[in-house]
Amino acid sequence: MYGYIGSMRARPGMRDDVIALLLDGVDGLRAAGCHSYVVSACATDDDRIWVTEVWESATHHAASLQLPATRAAIAAAMPMLTGEFTSQESQVVGGLGLGRAASPGGREDAAGGR
Amino acid sequence: MYGYIGSMRARPGMRDDVIALLLDGVDGLRAAGCHSYVVSACATDDDRIWVTEVWESATHHAASLQLPATRAAIAAAMPMLTGEFTSQESQVVGGLGLGRAASPGGREDAAGGR
Repeated sequence: MYGYIGSMRARPGMRDDVIALLLDGVDGLRAAGCHSYVVSACATDDDRIWVTEVWESATHHAASLQLPATRAAIAAAMPMLTGEFTSQESQVVGGLGLGRAASPGGREDAAGGR
Repeated sequence: MYGYIGSMRARPGMRDDVIALLLDGVDGLRAAGCHSYVVSACATDDDRIWVTEVWESATHHAASLQLPATRAAIAAAMPMLTGEFTSQESQVVGGLGLGRAASPGGREDAAGGR
């Protein structure tokens, strides 16, 4: 599985609006191969947003960025951002809460092994 | 919910051993208030490990570090680490794969709102 840890800075006072955009349409991510997608407000920077993601593969992640809903959300969010981004890619080995992208009705079990 | 994004560096050749320690006992985390716990190998540093976590609260996270199994895993891992750590705390707003800590048999649904 492919992991992505990213952050972005919102213009002052706009963080909540950007977070709302990031969470809008989250229901459709699982069908696109997403195992985990977590949006959070930085505890040490009032304007920064952290997003951690786990996808079936890097290809699934890249393809998701081309989905019409995602492209629209990115276009709407960009004017509210300062342009200060960070990103880190990884190979996810296991953990808790990774579900199963292919079985939306499945139980959320611990997933280990590689 | 409380979010934690951390990284650590293993001594050369020891990353897989540290990852195995980090994943051992993951089954018990949900009962301790953990919503998500993802362990991954850094894509740009052969020795770095990333861990992203979501807990019911910062208090739950802190308490988990005192569990005997966790203390034993930390003690076993420390000699294999270089001491180079990073950490970032956040307030988790929502996403996918956050499950429900209090209902281990529950389905993994998207969780939004704060």
